[in-house]
Amino acid sequence: MPAHRSGAASLILFVASLAVLDAEGGREGADIGSFGDALWWALTTVTTVGYGDRFPVTGTGRAVAAGLMLSGIALIGVVTATFASWLIEKVQEVEDAAQTATRRDIEALAEEVAQLRRTLEASQVRD
Amino acid sequence: MPAHRSGAASLILFVASLAVLDAEGGREGADIGSFGDALWWALTTVTTVGYGDRFPVTGTGRAVAAGLMLSGIALIGVVTATFASWLIEKVQEVEDAAQTATRRDIEALAEEVAQLRRTLEASQVRD
Amino acid sequence: MPAHRSGAASLILFVASLAVLDAEGGREGADIGSFGDALWWALTTVTTVGYGDRFPVTGTGRAVAAGLMLSGIALIGVVTATFASWLIEKVQEVEDAAQTATRRDIEALAEEVAQLRRTLEASQVRD
Amino acid sequence: MPAHRSGAASLILFVASLAVLDAEGGREGADIGSFGDALWWALTTVTTVGYGDRFPVTGTGRAVAAGLMLSGIALIGVVTATFASWLIEKVQEVEDAAQTATRRDIEALAEEVAQLRRTLEASQVRD
Repeated sequence: MPAHRSGAASLILFVASLAVLDAEGGREGADIGSFGDALWWALTTVTTVGYGDRFPVTGTGRAVAAGLMLSGIALIGVVTATFASWLIEKVQEVEDAAQTATRRDIEALAEEVAQLRRTLEASQVRD
Repeated sequence: MPAHRSGAASLILFVASLAVLDAEGGREGADIGSFGDALWWALTTVTTVGYGDRFPVTGTGRAVAAGLMLSGIALIGVVTATFASWLIEKVQEVEDAAQTATRRDIEALAEEVAQLRRTLEASQVRD
Repeated sequence: MPAHRSGAASLILFVASLAVLDAEGGREGADIGSFGDALWWALTTVTTVGYGDRFPVTGTGRAVAAGLMLSGIALIGVVTATFASWLIEKVQEVEDAAQTATRRDIEALAEEVAQLRRTLEASQVRD
Repeated sequence: MPAHRSGAASLILFVASLAVLDAEGGREGADIGSFGDALWWALTTVTTVGYGDRFPVTGTGRAVAAGLMLSGIALIGVVTATFASWLIEKVQEVEDAAQTATRRDIEALAEEVAQLRRTLEASQVRD
């Protein structure tokens, strides 16, 4: 994954961890009590692993979780599309090479016809 | 994701939450007791996160869950295919541009041949 | 998903449920005690949801689980590739139409050149 | 999946299992106490199933888990892209056949023009 995407993913994890810690920290029944716990929970959520050792119990915490879960689905999509894009670019190179060869053939043929016309015109002048 | 797909996904979540709440609410051993809990459970299920803090215990609830899980797999497929489609469309634009250039070359060649014929016919008239 | 793939997926779920029930049923600490529980567990595993309300504790049960988990990864791949394939086929139709148009142009041009030669040959006969 | 990728995936699982066992084994509150447990946990993590029956509680163990979770996302991407690549290669074969046919048409046209020139040159010699 390019550096700027890793950076964006890290930023989402960081912000979500802070937000869930703010919403859940110290609440009764909550088990996300430190930034380390919050980051660990965010990582298990965004990768859709979801051990369930920690999870939010407040409305705000669940809303943050919803954002992370959807980001996780998007993450899978982006990673897979990046692989696929790399494959498609290789296919495209082959196709582009074939297209370029075809266009070179057509250009050579156009030059052939142009010369033919010049020959014919020279012949008419001589007539 | 386009608006109508987000709407469809929201509708599936809403209907599944109501259905699971109807099946599970108040049953012994069940931990899905409110619409908020049901919606939270539906979201953890459709994104395949599956914390396991809440899960259905009745046959009907499990059937609703099965539908949500399969919707989740489809969701990942659709999101990934949407990214891939966007990439493929960019590739197609490049290919289409190459095709258009090739056809323009062929049209230029056809014009060249047409002129050749006019030259030749002029030559025959003079004969 | 085509019917034969749904059938194959159902068969894998059915066989895995029977195998895990045989391995786990009645063991101490095991919580997969009926076919319904086994099928429910198999579904949460193959879709990678993994609530953790039920999980195998024996070596054989874990081996069955490993097979189901890898089938789940394959399932996501097949569903996504099916969507992508449908998109790629639409792209292919556009590309094929462009290719066909190009070939028609080239055939028309070849006919034009052939007529030109016949005209020239007729002209030489008259000379 | 090709053999060398299965081998790489097995190696990652093996190394991660050893690393998490070293970090977690014997710690208070840890439930990963044998290599079998560690391997089982690694498998539930890399496939993003995440039952939560076992999970790391130390910083080092969580860091190993983070690596496995990201490997899991990459695994889904690679498996899906492998299916997609297989589909794309079939599309490419059709496109390549069309390209080859187009180039054959152009070669036939070039031969036609070459013959036209020979006819014309023969006509000029006779003049």
